[in-house]
Amino acid sequence: MAEWCKPVGRVKGVLLDICGVLYESGDGGGVPIVGSVEAVKRLKEASLQVRFCTNETQATREKFIKKLQNLGFDITVDEVFSPAPAVCQVLKERGLRPHLLVHDGLQPEFDQIDQSNPNCVVVGDAAEYFTYKNMNEAFQILMGLEKPILISLGRGRYYKETDGMKLDVGAYMKALEYACDIEAEVVGKPAEMFFLSALSDMGLEPDQVIMIGDDIVYDVGGAQQCGMKAVQVRTGKYRPCDEQHPTVKADGYVNNLAQAVTILLDHLH
Amino acid sequence: MAEWCKPVGRVKGVLLDICGVLYESGDGGGVPIVGSVEAVKRLKEASLQVRFCTNETQATREKFIKKLQNLGFDITVDEVFSPAPAVCQVLKERGLRPHLLVHDGLQPEFDQIDQSNPNCVVVGDAAEYFTYKNMNEAFQILMGLEKPILISLGRGRYYKETDGMKLDVGAYMKALEYACDIEAEVVGKPAEMFFLSALSDMGLEPDQVIMIGDDIVYDVGGAQQCGMKAVQVRTGKYRPCDEQHPTVKADGYVNNLAQAVTILLDHLH
Repeated sequence: MAEWCKPVGRVKGVLLDICGVLYESGDGGGVPIVGSVEAVKRLKEASLQVRFCTNETQATREKFIKKLQNLGFDITVDEVFSPAPAVCQVLKERGLRPHLLVHDGLQPEFDQIDQSNPNCVVVGDAAEYFTYKNMNEAFQILMGLEKPILISLGRGRYYKETDGMKLDVGAYMKALEYACDIEAEVVGKPAEMFFLSALSDMGLEPDQVIMIGDDIVYDVGGAQQCGMKAVQVRTGKYRPCDEQHPTVKADGYVNNLAQAVTILLDHLH
Repeated sequence: MAEWCKPVGRVKGVLLDICGVLYESGDGGGVPIVGSVEAVKRLKEASLQVRFCTNETQATREKFIKKLQNLGFDITVDEVFSPAPAVCQVLKERGLRPHLLVHDGLQPEFDQIDQSNPNCVVVGDAAEYFTYKNMNEAFQILMGLEKPILISLGRGRYYKETDGMKLDVGAYMKALEYACDIEAEVVGKPAEMFFLSALSDMGLEPDQVIMIGDDIVYDVGGAQQCGMKAVQVRTGKYRPCDEQHPTVKADGYVNNLAQAVTILLDHLH
């Protein structure tokens, strides 16, 4: 019996990473991972609560979810937790006016935020917008601030697209941290607050929810830090060496989301 | 009396950083810093040995020196120590075939180096060539190697051009280090070997040579690690907070190279 499903009857909800678990991103919107569309449907039919927890920051949540719906997924905006809405909350609370180093597709998330005379920099997965020019602009703004504040939408190292591994926001966050000799504040996985907001939305305790992701550190490690059990799928950015990770051990390893759901539902019935 | 000139008569040579000490770089080749052309001439007329030690990697040494000569400096290729020739030596010794993430202008330095089927990545100050595409290419090559080797031409955080501060190679080195979970090998300042090769070329001991630079950590700290005295100029990337640096204290601070030379020559006579 899979340890991560124990004790039987305790699991009431599932938290799913999106990229590398539901689908592989890439040019033209990406492709669903075999069995994942069906797996999400089966989870919902089994009356489990399902939320999605992503560090995706290349598009607004609305546009991103539309893409997933077009790929066949049963998913709504309300079910998705992503860094941009979370950071807007932080900016408002602290009176911060950001300079944005983000993907063009994400800009509309910040439409309601005052961006004049910036007193912080927000960096997201800007991808092709990570030009030398844009990096220097963000750098110069940070260096001009008496107390430079850098907020990063996640700190992922890389992700997998259909045409190969791509650098994620964390790499560029590190570049700015080093150049300015500062430490970024991270919003998104693996920040505890980020997982807790999804749990709170479900009204469940950490030990009632299973996290399923492809990133051993940010999905699995982050969820475990909050008291959840966490399973790594062997899709997306998974690499065999993850199973010998020096600091994080998943509660289970499965070939893909479909297999995880089959095992989980077997234990519920 | 300036402590860094003591003991009188001991100083036989001077090691000069170039960018931010001799000139400010920028579009159109940059401009000499006031008094620097004359200062280099006075050092040479005083029969001091003069060498130049730069982490500049946007152009071949030949082209770079030509530019400085055009600005009026008395400087020859033989007097200049820069990372590209040093790294070529390392590549040959270790049988490494580099994938180059460097400025187009630097490529000819590697003409004699086998670049087929790369087994390491060399990163320099690629500036506008630090595109997302080029960064991903380097990243993917590193991730495909069983033992990824990243060699960085310096690890500077930033430098000053006529139109503002620009990110240096160190920031992008950090991005790749983080993404691949590796540590780069640095060739160039502040690596001890790099300073020692200049001293050896002069035939002088570290305590016979004064380093003059604008970077508190890489010029001043690096030279001091080798046993030299080191002076920081208040030009180039100098910032007032450098004088309260938590770990490095220069042996002297001067307004510019011209002032440093005046003080030094006053003590020699």
